[in-house]
Amino acid sequence: MKDIQSQRDHRRINIQKVGVKDITYPVMVLDKAKRLQRTVANFNMYVNLPHRFKGTHMSRFIEILNQFHGEFDIKNLRLILEEMKMRLDAESAHLEIEFPYFVKQRPIHSNAIGIGEYQCKMHGVLDENYQLVLQINVPIVPLLHIQNGGGLPQFPGHWGNAVISIQYRNFIWIEDVIQMVEDVIGHRLNEEHQGGEDFPPTDHLSGESLLSVEKIAKAIGRKFSANSDILRFSISVENLSEGYKTFAVLDGPQEQTATA
Amino acid sequence: MKDIQSQRDHRRINIQKVGVKDITYPVMVLDKAKRLQRTVANFNMYVNLPHRFKGTHMSRFIEILNQFHGEFDIKNLRLILEEMKMRLDAESAHLEIEFPYFVKQRPIHSNAIGIGEYQCKMHGVLDENYQLVLQINVPIVPLLHIQNGGGLPQFPGHWGNAVISIQYRNFIWIEDVIQMVEDVIGHRLNEEHQGGEDFPPTDHLSGESLLSVEKIAKAIGRKFSANSDILRFSISVENLSEGYKTFAVLDGPQEQTATA
Amino acid sequence: MKDIQSQRDHRRINIQKVGVKDITYPVMVLDKAKRLQRTVANFNMYVNLPHRFKGTHMSRFIEILNQFHGEFDIKNLRLILEEMKMRLDAESAHLEIEFPYFVKQRPIHSNAIGIGEYQCKMHGVLDENYQLVLQINVPIVPLLHIQNGGGLPQFPGHWGNAVISIQYRNFIWIEDVIQMVEDVIGHRLNEEHQGGEDFPPTDHLSGESLLSVEKIAKAIGRKFSANSDILRFSISVENLSEGYKTFAVLDGPQEQTATA
Amino acid sequence: MKDIQSQRDHRRINIQKVGVKDITYPVMVLDKAKRLQRTVANFNMYVNLPHRFKGTHMSRFIEILNQFHGEFDIKNLRLILEEMKMRLDAESAHLEIEFPYFVKQRPIHSNAIGIGEYQCKMHGVLDENYQLVLQINVPIVPLLHIQNGGGLPQFPGHWGNAVISIQYRNFIWIEDVIQMVEDVIGHRLNEEHQGGEDFPPTDHLSGESLLSVEKIAKAIGRKFSANSDILRFSISVENLSEGYKTFAVLDGPQEQTATA
Repeated sequence: MKDIQSQRDHRRINIQKVGVKDITYPVMVLDKAKRLQRTVANFNMYVNLPHRFKGTHMSRFIEILNQFHGEFDIKNLRLILEEMKMRLDAESAHLEIEFPYFVKQRPIHSNAIGIGEYQCKMHGVLDENYQLVLQINVPIVPLLHIQNGGGLPQFPGHWGNAVISIQYRNFIWIEDVIQMVEDVIGHRLNEEHQGGEDFPPTDHLSGESLLSVEKIAKAIGRKFSANSDILRFSISVENLSEGYKTFAVLDGPQEQTATA
Repeated sequence: MKDIQSQRDHRRINIQKVGVKDITYPVMVLDKAKRLQRTVANFNMYVNLPHRFKGTHMSRFIEILNQFHGEFDIKNLRLILEEMKMRLDAESAHLEIEFPYFVKQRPIHSNAIGIGEYQCKMHGVLDENYQLVLQINVPIVPLLHIQNGGGLPQFPGHWGNAVISIQYRNFIWIEDVIQMVEDVIGHRLNEEHQGGEDFPPTDHLSGESLLSVEKIAKAIGRKFSANSDILRFSISVENLSEGYKTFAVLDGPQEQTATA
Repeated sequence: MKDIQSQRDHRRINIQKVGVKDITYPVMVLDKAKRLQRTVANFNMYVNLPHRFKGTHMSRFIEILNQFHGEFDIKNLRLILEEMKMRLDAESAHLEIEFPYFVKQRPIHSNAIGIGEYQCKMHGVLDENYQLVLQINVPIVPLLHIQNGGGLPQFPGHWGNAVISIQYRNFIWIEDVIQMVEDVIGHRLNEEHQGGEDFPPTDHLSGESLLSVEKIAKAIGRKFSANSDILRFSISVENLSEGYKTFAVLDGPQEQTATA
Repeated sequence: MKDIQSQRDHRRINIQKVGVKDITYPVMVLDKAKRLQRTVANFNMYVNLPHRFKGTHMSRFIEILNQFHGEFDIKNLRLILEEMKMRLDAESAHLEIEFPYFVKQRPIHSNAIGIGEYQCKMHGVLDENYQLVLQINVPIVPLLHIQNGGGLPQFPGHWGNAVISIQYRNFIWIEDVIQMVEDVIGHRLNEEHQGGEDFPPTDHLSGESLLSVEKIAKAIGRKFSANSDILRFSISVENLSEGYKTFAVLDGPQEQTATA
């Protein structure tokens, strides 16, 4: 009888993905207003290996990292991927870079901080082609119109987040993606008060919260679908204001039937 | 001229995924030794919606959750998915349940705690079929053989983790998956000291650490490939001992060419 | 000339505190409704050592922990501290136990979960005396009265948290502390709408948010000061709704001048 | 009969501490090699209020923060505290700033990253006097001398952390504190192998791990006690290598009896 145990030990089993994770490193990002912004990033570097691959040279990831000389310049993202792919003899190379990005802003009320923090992530992939996915977390801070006396907008709460992932056809600034999302959130509220298509007046009487993750996701989805610089997108909206989180996810572009 | 803005507003955009996240709730899990184990879980509940879908009834998730009566029994996982799918009129229903699971164990040395904590996750999906993916985080705590005087094994350090995901053909206890992984890690060390196939003696002289994420992933991969109760698996091994993390991922089953 | 280096090496330096941290372990807590509640806790165990102390027996912490036999019964808290103090020959012994505690509750609205999660912490200290500090995190979920049409209360958001620490004179149930805090938060809103002492009507016109961390901390402080079962307390209220956190801390009892 | 309820409501209850927390903001720190280092910090700003205090002006924290103009220069720490104290009419002002700090370093082995990350925290307090406490987390990465064949040092693992808090008499660079700690950890291992005072040879035979949190804390404590630039210190050493954490805390300076 054949010895299954020894047979098993000689089966060829291949690793699909190998690399390093959770490396904190200073980074320099393109900034629309200041040209460059220095911040601190968390890095993941990994490769997909071909089947014939015999052993990883893990130290090569660190050698490549050590070429950054104390600060990673995001302009070199593609070059680094090429070097990773070549030196590790890989089918594809991945670089994930996560960092807080800061944008100066006109305070919307007296208690607002004049600089906004947006958690961003870039995921660059190089196989036969080069792809870059940009992810941005845009906090949703709606104005509530509470009619007490003067009816002034009050209580600008941190309602939730829109986590946006886009792959662009033509370069788009982080600031411009944020602006698109914030336009939608602001616009939505006006629409809502006027009873737009998605927010018929009856919504207001339903006894539910005025904002919903689905409505916001759809409104951002329409905005992105209309922008020809955006090739693909994914939108995840979450509502933190309930004690638990509700969320809705929408990917695009979608096949569309214009109804007008 | 046609008004692009209003046209845009009428494009149909569909939500793909909607639900609730990060709900902490008591849970009752099947336990090989004690029949039942009470622990605390983090829940995500969400559905994929058909295209014609018009609006979500978010409160139905909470109504279903409130039927648990203060403790979720993991035996009801499929029933809950069926109810979610039906009541939310969904294409597919998802339930993700993450919890610490405790297993009594013979302490391997005088400083070891007699109860091991394993972070587990179950992801149940119901579309036309029912699928369950079980994920278990098994800490890797190798014995190091430091030859000082008596040459006794010392310094049982927390080297890293093997994060195992399996989809089983026939039911497997959490305890048995853990045992398989711990057998491999123990076995590996013996093989290594004897210079097994994957760990030729030259490895020892290379000046690198004795254990590697690739070797451990492959050894577990061979073990799982040989187990007919396991339909599919994914193994991610991470090494925490370097200040940064190194990791290797291996999915299976793989097409195999037995060389023996 | 005297050798400073060798002199330095012989200075006596004493350790003040030594122990183990971050051990996850099942725990059984007293429950007002169900008598006992099973949950999962994070443990810290440590001792303060006398000056003459020569070396710690770190393994004794684990030996004591291993006597729990897979589940720590909170009723044994003082016994464990006595054993720690004796076996480690310590001046004082500390046990910190942190766990989520669940309370069934009447849902306040259709989207509310019928079981509330309250993060709790017990810190037992035994030196010459025995002290127990109970800490509870009570989420603040106010009803907002938005006057749109029917003027019904809407948007029950997760505004912030009241983190309560009390040392009691006579035993108080976790449930009763939570009830006291929730009474205050509910009561406050009514007071506010009627222009109570702390919330004069002019507040409403100030253009600031209706709730403030100071007002809530003071209202809870008054409630606790009036309860003779509470020996000492500390109240930290935080507001999460602004994007950043605002907070106020109030300790008691305070020397009081009754003005009525 | 007197109405206790209304009496209670008029008791004066004072807030002790009030402020803002968890604000992420770019920061510029003094760097020994490069003069200045740009990194990203988490800010807490709060004040202690006098008893007569009637109401906080929470928006003043944000006004002060907004004067930073997008980057906080750590040289202004004391100025900011003075402004906080004055504008909020406070008894004392606190500023806590936490940030990753990067130091280039000669890699100790081929897998080491050429830039080290040290989590730092500065806590400035201004009451009648000005105090600054500097906290640095120094990872402990010992070389293990594993005698297999050539007996070369191997397996440079992340064993644990030394969390150092110091209040200095004369300015000390972050780099110099790190150097002192790393000297001690390196020195310790040599001492140990030679059987120094604190590490008698018998230790090696005890079957326990070679390093202990107590020994490392005491060795750093002796080093700091001998440095006249350091006014006060607290050392917390934690060992992460066991699956749970062990730790020892030592404060100084201690009354000392030189034995040589």
